[in-house]
Amino acid sequence: MDEFDIDRLSTPDLDDPVLIEGLPGVGHVGKLAAEHLLEEFDAELVRRIHSEHFPPQVTVEEGRTQLASAEMYAIRDAERDLLVLTGDHQAGDGPGHYRLTETILDVAASFDVAQVYALGGIPTGELVDEPAVVGAATADEEIESLETFGVEFRENEPAGGIVGVSGLLLGLGERRGFEAACLMGETSGYLVDPKSARVVLETLEAAVPFEVGYDTLSERAEEMEAVIKRIRQMEQGTTPSEEDLRYIG
Amino acid sequence: MDEFDIDRLSTPDLDDPVLIEGLPGVGHVGKLAAEHLLEEFDAELVRRIHSEHFPPQVTVEEGRTQLASAEMYAIRDAERDLLVLTGDHQAGDGPGHYRLTETILDVAASFDVAQVYALGGIPTGELVDEPAVVGAATADEEIESLETFGVEFRENEPAGGIVGVSGLLLGLGERRGFEAACLMGETSGYLVDPKSARVVLETLEAAVPFEVGYDTLSERAEEMEAVIKRIRQMEQGTTPSEEDLRYIG
Amino acid sequence: MDEFDIDRLSTPDLDDPVLIEGLPGVGHVGKLAAEHLLEEFDAELVRRIHSEHFPPQVTVEEGRTQLASAEMYAIRDAERDLLVLTGDHQAGDGPGHYRLTETILDVAASFDVAQVYALGGIPTGELVDEPAVVGAATADEEIESLETFGVEFRENEPAGGIVGVSGLLLGLGERRGFEAACLMGETSGYLVDPKSARVVLETLEAAVPFEVGYDTLSERAEEMEAVIKRIRQMEQGTTPSEEDLRYIG
Amino acid sequence: MDEFDIDRLSTPDLDDPVLIEGLPGVGHVGKLAAEHLLEEFDAELVRRIHSEHFPPQVTVEEGRTQLASAEMYAIRDAERDLLVLTGDHQAGDGPGHYRLTETILDVAASFDVAQVYALGGIPTGELVDEPAVVGAATADEEIESLETFGVEFRENEPAGGIVGVSGLLLGLGERRGFEAACLMGETSGYLVDPKSARVVLETLEAAVPFEVGYDTLSERAEEMEAVIKRIRQMEQGTTPSEEDLRYIG
Repeated sequence: MDEFDIDRLSTPDLDDPVLIEGLPGVGHVGKLAAEHLLEEFDAELVRRIHSEHFPPQVTVEEGRTQLASAEMYAIRDAERDLLVLTGDHQAGDGPGHYRLTETILDVAASFDVAQVYALGGIPTGELVDEPAVVGAATADEEIESLETFGVEFRENEPAGGIVGVSGLLLGLGERRGFEAACLMGETSGYLVDPKSARVVLETLEAAVPFEVGYDTLSERAEEMEAVIKRIRQMEQGTTPSEEDLRYIG
Repeated sequence: MDEFDIDRLSTPDLDDPVLIEGLPGVGHVGKLAAEHLLEEFDAELVRRIHSEHFPPQVTVEEGRTQLASAEMYAIRDAERDLLVLTGDHQAGDGPGHYRLTETILDVAASFDVAQVYALGGIPTGELVDEPAVVGAATADEEIESLETFGVEFRENEPAGGIVGVSGLLLGLGERRGFEAACLMGETSGYLVDPKSARVVLETLEAAVPFEVGYDTLSERAEEMEAVIKRIRQMEQGTTPSEEDLRYIG
Repeated sequence: MDEFDIDRLSTPDLDDPVLIEGLPGVGHVGKLAAEHLLEEFDAELVRRIHSEHFPPQVTVEEGRTQLASAEMYAIRDAERDLLVLTGDHQAGDGPGHYRLTETILDVAASFDVAQVYALGGIPTGELVDEPAVVGAATADEEIESLETFGVEFRENEPAGGIVGVSGLLLGLGERRGFEAACLMGETSGYLVDPKSARVVLETLEAAVPFEVGYDTLSERAEEMEAVIKRIRQMEQGTTPSEEDLRYIG
Repeated sequence: MDEFDIDRLSTPDLDDPVLIEGLPGVGHVGKLAAEHLLEEFDAELVRRIHSEHFPPQVTVEEGRTQLASAEMYAIRDAERDLLVLTGDHQAGDGPGHYRLTETILDVAASFDVAQVYALGGIPTGELVDEPAVVGAATADEEIESLETFGVEFRENEPAGGIVGVSGLLLGLGERRGFEAACLMGETSGYLVDPKSARVVLETLEAAVPFEVGYDTLSERAEEMEAVIKRIRQMEQGTTPSEEDLRYIG
């Protein structure tokens, strides 16, 4: 295997597609949002990226193994063509993050992507009832435009910057001429957070724009609400069942 | 030394050999199983693989040092020719794991191996009286075939995927056209587990197939049973001798 | 992106410029000192250095992202031309530190720099009322010269040597024929320390020489004094406001 | 700087020299032993090895900085010519250890070294009154020969093998045709141990052979005895002075 090994599974013609990234991160907000798009639309796997910079492992689903990878899907039945990047892993080393992001941008460029949205969570340290969407972008026009959709741009947030592929899609993307923005849903940082994923998606939906239903994400959010309720009970002395706990990410 | 340095000690003609991997891991199940094959059959060391991706160390046995390596042995007195990979180390870094596995597959290909079995343990967190063998494979046919030998393929196990050379032999092996499967014996995760190694070997024996005795492995399993018994006594206040404790891996 | 990617924003003619480095470190002394020079003089950004050896992240300021980088500024309105290096990051891996420092020295050489000052803090473990400036240098003449400005050269300090870009600017700089010295202000090691930055700058001011005002640094030092006072009160049971705590680095 | 940068300070003709390695490690036994040779004999610095695999730092002695390095000294006034390797650092990464050791062996080969002794400590976990010297070697003849000098070769010691440059000098040295042995003095593992360094040196002295005085090492051993005595008093409630504690490594 080379440093990066890309399976080219399909190369559909896309019309001015938007790259949407949702890899694992805080509260799995980005990944939940990206996966929701894959469920709601008719998504076609177009690229699978393998790399020695991913952790040395396979995932296993019902016995079938899958080498660590990031996947890119094309969605053509939304109001605007989308290229959705998701997967189970970030890179395992610093230079690997840079090189993986460049590889992703290479693929994006090959599909004539001009605009990039990185999705993620921003940790608040406590449970949030009505999560805001905090933004970051490579250009002032992008900031002004996203403010009209309710995105908040705050003086010193996120305090530690944006780390990993999400951050580098903006940092390296800007250098290559992409318009790039990051949408981060407020989330506690302790739990998988479908509610935060929903507000991020609603913002993205308005910005791109496209239209999508939220039934399955709402169900997952309600499940999490139930879990949180039981955790609070647990803190007060009641023991939850194992079933309740398997949603805790 | 180059990144990989392979001592080619012998290159016997093998007839459709199966690669069997047993490197250190959970409960030392894979390594115990592989070493049992080397003891029971007439094994010939054919390759010794050195690499700067192994930990920077030598092992010492009765004063003689041996540079960190992985070893491949040919077994030709079993019902089917076997190529057994074992050693004391996994790679020390992520890309090293990928490259080491590719190197192993290169050697396997040079012996015309088509089928690969990675052996290991799957941690249960508690002592297991009758360990099951959990499987993973690169193809549905392989899964169906192994199910007939009692291998269990579970929905979300192993939860964290398969890490290290075992996992990559499947992940990278599949990309190169090998049929590959992983057999994992249930084991507590806290102790060296010859009993789990035995059930893994029994499954492998049926699948490959070949026939092997289990006397020495049974002895080691009985020794471990005695150790476990004493640990339980220890938990109840009795102190075991140092001799008892040296089997704890 | 290559291993290092340098934006050449401007290449003014400098007359025998001195390289002054102030990257993040103990008490942020070096960074505070370097930033003070950029505020007090008319500084022109001449180079921005990006590298896959920096952490994989962007910083965010009021929503605008900036890819991890080190910056070099030219100052031509001081008594002597200065080239000031600052930024938010050190390299993320050992070889990266060496290569980043070589890259910085390449840029310095391209501006005909002959003399290098690395600025930083030396931790004392306790609050220091009148911080001394401890020095290190590549040549005995440099040591003698700096002693005339009150710099202390101590037998075994800093005990662990000088780590990171500051240390390597001396170590690698010496090999390339630069005169290089490190000025380290005593600081507790627990707090951002503008007072220590000031004494370092005052020493540098005498050594280079140049003249600079200290009003803004004095204000920040006074703010920190107030914070320290409140911390001491806090230790005695009084709770400070959140506002007081945001200066703690 | 290249990956390795070697300063060739002198290249004296040596007659069948023995390479003796004493880098930092358990109880600083190897380093103390190597430094004792440099003090007792007329040692000439012949090579200084720099590398980006060393930690990114300079050491500072009375203000003068020295880039991280390993040093090789030639000793020609002993009964047999010696090439002594010492320094303040091991490599900072796994492959770096392999490459550093190859570089050292390259230098050794250029001086026609055929025999290598790596010196170090073997931790016992408790204070040892009469430390034994435990050995490891690349060949049975070497083991037999060293046994005549009282070196002990034990079944499973050192249990974790020999890590770092010492181990690789044997592992890689053997592959390149060097005769190599490691002499490890028993030591608690908690303290700098000149007594253990002395017994290692006495063994080496008999094996090479050469003759050396031990006055300075005996003094340091006595100082340590005093420290240990005070630590024991401290455990019984008496507080030692700071002076007493500065020998604790």
